[in-house]
Amino acid sequence: MSGVTRKITPTRVPEPARVDPVLVEGEHLEPYELDPEGLGLGHVLAPCSVALIGASRDERAIGHRLLLNLLAAGFQGPIFPVNPHAESVAGVPAFASIRDIPDSVELAVIAVPAAAVPAVVDECAERGVRGLVVVSAGFREIGREGAARERRLLQRVREGGMRLVGPNCLGIMNTAIGLDATFAPVRPPPGKITVLSQSGALGVALLDGMARLGLGLSSFVSIGNRADVSSNDLLRYWEDDDATEIVLLYLESFGNPRKFSQIARRLVRSKPIVAVTAGRSAAGRRAASSHTAAAATSDDAVEALLAQTGVIRVDTPEQLLDVTRVLTSQPLPAGDRVAIVGNSGGPGVLAVDACVDAGLRVTQLGESTQYELRRLLGPHAAVENPVDMIASATAAHYEQTLSRVLADDAVDMALVIHTPIVEPADDVVAAIERAVVGARKPVVVAALLPAVTPGVASPRALPCFTSPEPAALALGRVARHAAWLRRDPGVVPELADIDSEAARALVEDALQHHDDVWLDLDRAVALVRAYGVPAIATRRAASADAAALLAEDLGFPVVLKAASGAILHKTEVAALRLDLRDADAVCRAFAELAPAGPVVVQPMAGPGVELIVGLVRRRAFGPLLMFGAGGVATELLADRAFHILPLTDVDARELVRGLRSSPRLFGYRGAPPADVAELEALLLRVGQLACEIPELEELDLNPVIASPRGAVAVDVKVHLRRP
Amino acid sequence: MSGVTRKITPTRVPEPARVDPVLVEGEHLEPYELDPEGLGLGHVLAPCSVALIGASRDERAIGHRLLLNLLAAGFQGPIFPVNPHAESVAGVPAFASIRDIPDSVELAVIAVPAAAVPAVVDECAERGVRGLVVVSAGFREIGREGAARERRLLQRVREGGMRLVGPNCLGIMNTAIGLDATFAPVRPPPGKITVLSQSGALGVALLDGMARLGLGLSSFVSIGNRADVSSNDLLRYWEDDDATEIVLLYLESFGNPRKFSQIARRLVRSKPIVAVTAGRSAAGRRAASSHTAAAATSDDAVEALLAQTGVIRVDTPEQLLDVTRVLTSQPLPAGDRVAIVGNSGGPGVLAVDACVDAGLRVTQLGESTQYELRRLLGPHAAVENPVDMIASATAAHYEQTLSRVLADDAVDMALVIHTPIVEPADDVVAAIERAVVGARKPVVVAALLPAVTPGVASPRALPCFTSPEPAALALGRVARHAAWLRRDPGVVPELADIDSEAARALVEDALQHHDDVWLDLDRAVALVRAYGVPAIATRRAASADAAALLAEDLGFPVVLKAASGAILHKTEVAALRLDLRDADAVCRAFAELAPAGPVVVQPMAGPGVELIVGLVRRRAFGPLLMFGAGGVATELLADRAFHILPLTDVDARELVRGLRSSPRLFGYRGAPPADVAELEALLLRVGQLACEIPELEELDLNPVIASPRGAVAVDVKVHLRRP
Repeated sequence: MSGVTRKITPTRVPEPARVDPVLVEGEHLEPYELDPEGLGLGHVLAPCSVALIGASRDERAIGHRLLLNLLAAGFQGPIFPVNPHAESVAGVPAFASIRDIPDSVELAVIAVPAAAVPAVVDECAERGVRGLVVVSAGFREIGREGAARERRLLQRVREGGMRLVGPNCLGIMNTAIGLDATFAPVRPPPGKITVLSQSGALGVALLDGMARLGLGLSSFVSIGNRADVSSNDLLRYWEDDDATEIVLLYLESFGNPRKFSQIARRLVRSKPIVAVTAGRSAAGRRAASSHTAAAATSDDAVEALLAQTGVIRVDTPEQLLDVTRVLTSQPLPAGDRVAIVGNSGGPGVLAVDACVDAGLRVTQLGESTQYELRRLLGPHAAVENPVDMIASATAAHYEQTLSRVLADDAVDMALVIHTPIVEPADDVVAAIERAVVGARKPVVVAALLPAVTPGVASPRALPCFTSPEPAALALGRVARHAAWLRRDPGVVPELADIDSEAARALVEDALQHHDDVWLDLDRAVALVRAYGVPAIATRRAASADAAALLAEDLGFPVVLKAASGAILHKTEVAALRLDLRDADAVCRAFAELAPAGPVVVQPMAGPGVELIVGLVRRRAFGPLLMFGAGGVATELLADRAFHILPLTDVDARELVRGLRSSPRLFGYRGAPPADVAELEALLLRVGQLACEIPELEELDLNPVIASPRGAVAVDVKVHLRRP
Repeated sequence: MSGVTRKITPTRVPEPARVDPVLVEGEHLEPYELDPEGLGLGHVLAPCSVALIGASRDERAIGHRLLLNLLAAGFQGPIFPVNPHAESVAGVPAFASIRDIPDSVELAVIAVPAAAVPAVVDECAERGVRGLVVVSAGFREIGREGAARERRLLQRVREGGMRLVGPNCLGIMNTAIGLDATFAPVRPPPGKITVLSQSGALGVALLDGMARLGLGLSSFVSIGNRADVSSNDLLRYWEDDDATEIVLLYLESFGNPRKFSQIARRLVRSKPIVAVTAGRSAAGRRAASSHTAAAATSDDAVEALLAQTGVIRVDTPEQLLDVTRVLTSQPLPAGDRVAIVGNSGGPGVLAVDACVDAGLRVTQLGESTQYELRRLLGPHAAVENPVDMIASATAAHYEQTLSRVLADDAVDMALVIHTPIVEPADDVVAAIERAVVGARKPVVVAALLPAVTPGVASPRALPCFTSPEPAALALGRVARHAAWLRRDPGVVPELADIDSEAARALVEDALQHHDDVWLDLDRAVALVRAYGVPAIATRRAASADAAALLAEDLGFPVVLKAASGAILHKTEVAALRLDLRDADAVCRAFAELAPAGPVVVQPMAGPGVELIVGLVRRRAFGPLLMFGAGGVATELLADRAFHILPLTDVDARELVRGLRSSPRLFGYRGAPPADVAELEALLLRVGQLACEIPELEELDLNPVIASPRGAVAVDVKVHLRRP
């Protein structure tokens, strides 16, 4: 059957599929929404026996490489190559069909051409196989025909009560049981790091990096088209997997981000997750979307999701491994203050820049530390932070200096730099290791001159870099993660004065005759007011005279606005007349606006800081709260933040303080401070509104005026759509 | 004399000195402001004979390492070790003193203790030595005593008609003549790359990186405390040095940035300059300042200087070498459009993100290219940009695909990615090299999996990286440099309506009794108006009645402001009364403001876009023009740019278009476009004012209101100081 196997061309390093939009991860998962045991992933990741269907004698075929990897990794159970045209493959007796295997087979790895896969899967079901890894390409990544094939495949998998990784994947590894069912050309040593990759090539690159850096692998899963087993399933499985202490992700899309958020938020408390997500740029998203319809999630949503669930996000696979080296070998820092210790000045200054870039603080050392260092290092050294022991520093100087620096209460972590001109790098690293013993603070080393002293290694796994920048970045990410773990998540407070029945009635009424509607301004205001969101009084006027009466009632000056939701959502600037100071002006304005539809009267809003509060939907993410600076200029400057829901009191507090222009709210340059508590309450109310009204497709409070008198929405756009 | 040499402890990898502020580079250079020949640097960098004073038999001493390097590098002329206590050092006959050397000595390398250096320099002068490299530490980097010693040293050097590199430096190299007068532990192969480093350790790190990457060195100079020879001297020397084709800089400070600007701007047209400058962050600047008083230049000035003189700026030494690899081996791109070609999807998407980050455009390939690629690569490949040939791609696929892509007019450069799963990396690199032959477009390679295929090398020096990100960054910097070279620098236009005599008279008058003064608002307005800068009419009122008359003359509504320069520069918000609509209101406002000093009347400014135009001085940089978005919020967002002077018409054009909020000036969201030509003219006039009034210490036009009617300064602060 090697002829068949050879036909697996063109070979594709498994990549996210060009998805048929109807086939999105998560949809088919309802039957498996059980406890992790019920996920059945153990049949895939920890099987007792493995059959390789499509084992090949052709050395270039994937079915050959798979078999060699299976054999070489030291799997304890039986391995059954299946090949109808060979007595044996790579010296192992082969079977013509899985039906001919006398023993039971728990996992089948399938590497036959796509067209042959469904029949093979049927045979597997008959033989009681429980787990499948389909490496074969030719499914939805190749278009409509492949997508139909994938649907048929999934149908049979489900009927057979099996779980499936793939198709179009690189395979899986589980070092605890010596399982390497991949065709990767490299295998890291065993360890506690688990890797999940949506791209086969990136998966291999990560395995390669781990092998190079001596990082130990627990499990590896290339999820391919993830027709069945999703990243979320795997995260839940690894939560209870003692062999996994840290999870690395490469993702281009999120099938069910809300579930991801729930799972990840819990998992990271015991097992850190470090992630690279491709498609940060619009062009990158287009590139990713060209092979997965689910991928085109704008980066603001991904950023909010990962930051708020405690996932450590980095930009490149290199950074992923750099952070992992620190996480797996060092304790978490108690704060963000870094001490820099080295034997040269220039690298020290560059390290300071890099630490600041990474969000760390390069603070003053304590006075007694400085005094001791001066005594130890003599008059030519710099004993402030960064400490420059100068080039004559010996290994002993490193040990003593670092011990003192780590004992300083003003130091949460240390970055040690060595330029090996006088003292060999290995001696210095050994000295640093002695200094670190017993210190409960993370330490990383940047040993420069890799051409002079290549591959400086630390037997105690102290992370050694060849320049300060990646070391600083890794420390910074780890410190931010530690801060996230320490952070009080807050509570979603009970809010008073919420008339959810009125809101529900308003929504039902609006959607009575249409499934998709933009509310008129007065009804939009009424909706948000039902949730206690302060919005400026907005009264509909049926005639010019009525408008004048309303104006008198509200108090001059007033504003008249065209109120039609149908018009408002299409115009950049609502048709409006400002600063109307008497009844005549109101009547004239009414006459001008009335032809376009209903007209509302509002009092003029007082002065204050202009803000935007809104809800946006990003595909499967559900509603995201947006909070930003208002006004034309700041819109261009995109000073805004996104937050996943629900929103806690702490979230609201941080949002209000997190804008670059937030100082405006706190008495900037002599201006009176705004009522920030009211603004936080407004955000919380909008958050609850979004959670309770699933028909809320879009919401835009723009501007919200924050002032010492409170926070009030002046304009409200509401888009309702029946789900 | 080995005993003496051993005393050069503590050893210091030469770092920028803790500078005595009176001793700043450039001040002592007047006698040498001649043509490059007259600089005399050839005696240092290209000597016929070398003496090493302080040659040591102690293997750990710098005087020993220096001698070994001198001997090992293949210097053609004689090398004379000087050591009064040894017959020979490292097998070479030694002399007790430089006086005993029978032949003439052009360059003396001095590695004796600091206290002994002046006497040695005197001996050198007697013997007719022309060049000195003082490696010894113990000068101004150690404080006041060392600074005095350095002044004495410089005095003797000048009297002896010599040029000096150092003191406190790592030494120099010139591979063209086999000269290595450093104690660096590594020496790159000979080549065309010249390196100047203000930090010894960073210098060694760069040499190490070059050796590792096979980049060829021309000259290396560690400038140390640069008591005499400065970076500017060296840049002028290398301009005429045929052995130098590219210059790499590591700098922490600029001694004479205006001269640097003149020299660099000319040099980069034939020889690119790539620079890392430390101290980007405030904390980094503090760290740098703690050892060089001249270093504390805020990064906005450095950024403006480097960008506007065409220097390629990068953040790290690694990036410096990455850019150098592309510059030295590839042609410059004609535009910013990059094609990404690879055999996997995930790395392609990451490469797109990285290219966008680097300022490149990932554009569509031409239709005929896509058609040909589809035919070549089959239905499973992605033939848009990024091109994914999928993992079965052979070396031949790489060659043919890349040839077609490079022939596409829509492509200016290519980033080729290879994940070596099927095809070995070396075969693919060879195929890429064949495709590149004849193409006048830069190509770089990212060959992943360095653990599987370590050290993939290209015999034709195609830059090979191990991940897409550094490759994209290097391409991006090179493309930006190419754009700078193509850029029309513009002209400094002749401006009409400039009454420089009136301005001069005003300045002289203001400084008649004070050396340092803030102008009252009406005089500040008069000064900028003398240069034709449109500023709002500003009339001083001696009494309430006079104010009312002026208001009537200017037309209501008006503004009254306290006008005292002494007050204005101290208050965040000028004391002012806005929107005064009649004579009564004016009189009341006058009564309120008059007790604080003179009062001026202005018409109310019309609506428009608020901007800030200013001049700031950053130490030796001279005045920098600042242009930014106005208003409190945008100030927090720091949407602004700095520009060195003089300003050309093209500069002004780019400034006005370069802010993130610049779209506001061009008819954003239905607003009428501002008169941008008037705004550009305003910038040019402020630029000329700054160039012609050296007493102008600070200038602040805030706000400038740009509207369809023009651009007008509403508030003007002027600080004059007699230089």
